[in-house]
Amino acid sequence: MKQSTSLAAIALAVAGLAAAPAPAAAASPAPTPSQIVASAPAADWTDVPAENLLLLDLAGGGRVAIELAPDFAPVHVANIRKLVQAGWFDGTSINRVQDNYVAQWGDATERKALPAGIVAQPPAEYERPAEGSGFAALPYRDAYAAKVGHADGWPAASEGRDAWLVHCYGMVGVGRDMSPDTGTGAELYAVIGHAPRHLDRNIAVAGRVLDGIEHLSTLPRGTEALGFYARPDQRLPIATVRLAVDLPPTDRSAYQVLRQGSPSFAAWVHARANRKDDFFIRPAGGADICNLQPPVRRKP
Amino acid sequence: MKQSTSLAAIALAVAGLAAAPAPAAAASPAPTPSQIVASAPAADWTDVPAENLLLLDLAGGGRVAIELAPDFAPVHVANIRKLVQAGWFDGTSINRVQDNYVAQWGDATERKALPAGIVAQPPAEYERPAEGSGFAALPYRDAYAAKVGHADGWPAASEGRDAWLVHCYGMVGVGRDMSPDTGTGAELYAVIGHAPRHLDRNIAVAGRVLDGIEHLSTLPRGTEALGFYARPDQRLPIATVRLAVDLPPTDRSAYQVLRQGSPSFAAWVHARANRKDDFFIRPAGGADICNLQPPVRRKP
Repeated sequence: MKQSTSLAAIALAVAGLAAAPAPAAAASPAPTPSQIVASAPAADWTDVPAENLLLLDLAGGGRVAIELAPDFAPVHVANIRKLVQAGWFDGTSINRVQDNYVAQWGDATERKALPAGIVAQPPAEYERPAEGSGFAALPYRDAYAAKVGHADGWPAASEGRDAWLVHCYGMVGVGRDMSPDTGTGAELYAVIGHAPRHLDRNIAVAGRVLDGIEHLSTLPRGTEALGFYARPDQRLPIATVRLAVDLPPTDRSAYQVLRQGSPSFAAWVHARANRKDDFFIRPAGGADICNLQPPVRRKP
Repeated sequence: MKQSTSLAAIALAVAGLAAAPAPAAAASPAPTPSQIVASAPAADWTDVPAENLLLLDLAGGGRVAIELAPDFAPVHVANIRKLVQAGWFDGTSINRVQDNYVAQWGDATERKALPAGIVAQPPAEYERPAEGSGFAALPYRDAYAAKVGHADGWPAASEGRDAWLVHCYGMVGVGRDMSPDTGTGAELYAVIGHAPRHLDRNIAVAGRVLDGIEHLSTLPRGTEALGFYARPDQRLPIATVRLAVDLPPTDRSAYQVLRQGSPSFAAWVHARANRKDDFFIRPAGGADICNLQPPVRRKP
């Protein structure tokens, strides 16, 4: 499709999870970000541990794969693991979908008892010490933080001695009520719009969607205030939520993330921020951290 | 819904087009952005001219209201008006929907003859002189441009003597092939994900979706590379595209945008960048220009 092919080509690089073949501009002097990803050697990819991989299966089909972030929100992630291993999310539903904001799921009745061992009031795991977090700053400006970059392969920001995960498209946060409540993890949301970065350090970020976010982002928007569904029958039921480690190997999904610090990762970041393929007239010379979410692929 | 209400409350401010009632935090010491918008006097709103309002009616229902930007892309907008007034888009379709990127429409066959008077090779209307554009900078950092702010009520950026519209959620751009081609306007896309700001100054931005973007953002994602649909029958047909000025008054939609420079606009920007309602622990003290898209409402 002539007029759209070139626009389309760059989409590969923009769509963080795109696992599509290299675009038509393969003869381009500068490799595109997607070409760099497609040619990254096995050593430049790192496995997502099965104990951190949450698999949310929707009623009627559709699996959303979520990587948990235990290093950033350990108590919230421990709660989520307990909820999942107790089958607590099974039969709950997606109750709220607000355009350009979030899709949110949990127990719509808010009467479902939590399993034993859940920490009812987790600490405010909104930031952690930058030291030891694996945070590496990028030389790009950010509207919200002094520094942005990646921390152990996650989009992150840092100020002073703190580092935190940023609310990019696909990041998964913990719904909460007014401070000091931080949420138990029984109500979660995924960002399905432009990064609501003002939530950073105000809410616990507990994970990110690695695959299948289209099963959330294409849902009908709720017509009530804030995107809540007007009728209970509009809520999409969740069949099961499991940790990959608890599933039989045949039913596990397995993913890899381009490894922060690898040559391919560095080349990909540079190419994303300095687009030089045939389509571009003016490379940006920088990029929003939420346009630098590390590439993900199914484990070969 | 206890755990989600507060998270939900801030959604109003994030969803630029939200016309929902003031959130539960009405007793909050600092008014929320949505409260400021809800209480803005009539004098602080400005009408979208009917000759700039494009109404895209989808087969099977659903209207997408798009404001054209003739001051930023005059030749492209003149082309789009000619295409629309010739009924050229009627019976075309949405051919590509890529998650976290764009929904794109036009003639899938690329064989449909263009009406007389279309400029086949418009100039590269990627920026304009900042002087006379109405650009007013905000004191917030940006990853892509030296300055960001608003220009005549549009999210914009500026560097040196130039100003340009930025690729925020809902912005409408002109699909093109390789430079120096700039596209005729016969193939358009709307951003349905995190702002692909690297497209700024590489593509003509010709408008923005004011209402009904959920009719695009919820469409099934195309399964082919770049989000193109695999089968022609997966494309959503477009019934008609009209300018509001050409419709009978009863069928016109009419919108207003919170007026840049009005007291309510200034208060809204400040509140968006410095959230102090009960939910927030840590106001950001800044905001991404794409989280500062001017509020829009139906004309009362």
